[in-house]
Amino acid sequence: MQIALLGGTGDIGEGLALRFAYDTDHDVLIGSRDASRAETKAREYETELDSRGLTVDVAGHDNADAAAAADVVVLAVPAYHLADTVEAIAADIDADTVLVTPAVGMKRDEDGFHYNRPGAGSVTALAAEAAPEDVPVVGAYHNLSAARLANLDADLGIDTAIVGDDADAVDTVTRLSEEIEGLRAVDAGPLANAAEIEAITPLLINVAKNNDGMHDLGVRFE
Amino acid sequence: MQIALLGGTGDIGEGLALRFAYDTDHDVLIGSRDASRAETKAREYETELDSRGLTVDVAGHDNADAAAAADVVVLAVPAYHLADTVEAIAADIDADTVLVTPAVGMKRDEDGFHYNRPGAGSVTALAAEAAPEDVPVVGAYHNLSAARLANLDADLGIDTAIVGDDADAVDTVTRLSEEIEGLRAVDAGPLANAAEIEAITPLLINVAKNNDGMHDLGVRFE
Repeated sequence: MQIALLGGTGDIGEGLALRFAYDTDHDVLIGSRDASRAETKAREYETELDSRGLTVDVAGHDNADAAAAADVVVLAVPAYHLADTVEAIAADIDADTVLVTPAVGMKRDEDGFHYNRPGAGSVTALAAEAAPEDVPVVGAYHNLSAARLANLDADLGIDTAIVGDDADAVDTVTRLSEEIEGLRAVDAGPLANAAEIEAITPLLINVAKNNDGMHDLGVRFE
Repeated sequence: MQIALLGGTGDIGEGLALRFAYDTDHDVLIGSRDASRAETKAREYETELDSRGLTVDVAGHDNADAAAAADVVVLAVPAYHLADTVEAIAADIDADTVLVTPAVGMKRDEDGFHYNRPGAGSVTALAAEAAPEDVPVVGAYHNLSAARLANLDADLGIDTAIVGDDADAVDTVTRLSEEIEGLRAVDAGPLANAAEIEAITPLLINVAKNNDGMHDLGVRFE
């Protein structure tokens, strides 16, 4: 498969790109609003992978070209860029493309981080509203630490809860996710169940902040 | 210490009562609106503990008497009874009592369970609003499976995220929680951070419903 990471020059995009390239046989395409920036980052990721004995090509494109070439398109962009990003690639994706949204909206105050639930019900639902009607949308990777993903020496041993209304698309993302070593995909049901998953992300930051020795946390359903 | 479980005849109350009685040296008091029902349940818990070679007294009282005798009062009641329950015991608790609230508000539709966030910000915040001003309130045990707690053969190996604005009260509940075998207490910061913890409970139900072999789930921050 061709996996595009839109916003693949950012933290979570970098982490997912490295893990997909290192742990799976799929092709990884980095997307950015600026194609030359995507190219530069793709070379950096290749260098990091090469230092671990893995010679692979990582492509760099603008978001639309990356999406057009991909079977799975991960929207690794901040929540406030999600709708824009989907609209910018709408003409380049179709019913055979699976859109994956890991974005979470948070706000911060003196107590800690808090889930900032959008009017649509969740950020995942926002992505689904922005997507062309025939393109399946799957929520995944909301609770993964970008730093832990990007450090290929770090064991994962964590879960990602997956939501979606299209069973085939959920199956594709589930199988792809489980190719990442140490990542278990669990099915959390339809897209309407996304908010409770997204809300875990600020909690993980609060727990890391308040407990010595806990950082770059993920979650495990036991 | 004296640990009162108000609503200690219900599912989560039973689970916590059995674990506190089995794993700690503290005294366990079952509270109920109906003292005779609390007495009956206390005898059942003694029988269950006796079957495992542990002879202990479990007391049964009405909620107010149980609270009056206790150092730590766990409000093991449904979210919609929380404010009533706190008001019913307000005269029986003081600044030396720690109130613990594990309640979560949920609603269910055809997609699954959803967090029903109250206007106060969280159910934990509702409890704090209902409590006398000098009584410290701690949020804990929101994400524990009642059935798994009540089955003393079941390993826990899970976390409970704790929130509170009174450091001494948080410390008391943290230490008490960690006396339960296999339960790790993590500090999630002030009470204002409770909603994201409460939201995990419906997610655990959704995950259990959608994945074969996963049931009575808890969460672990890894």
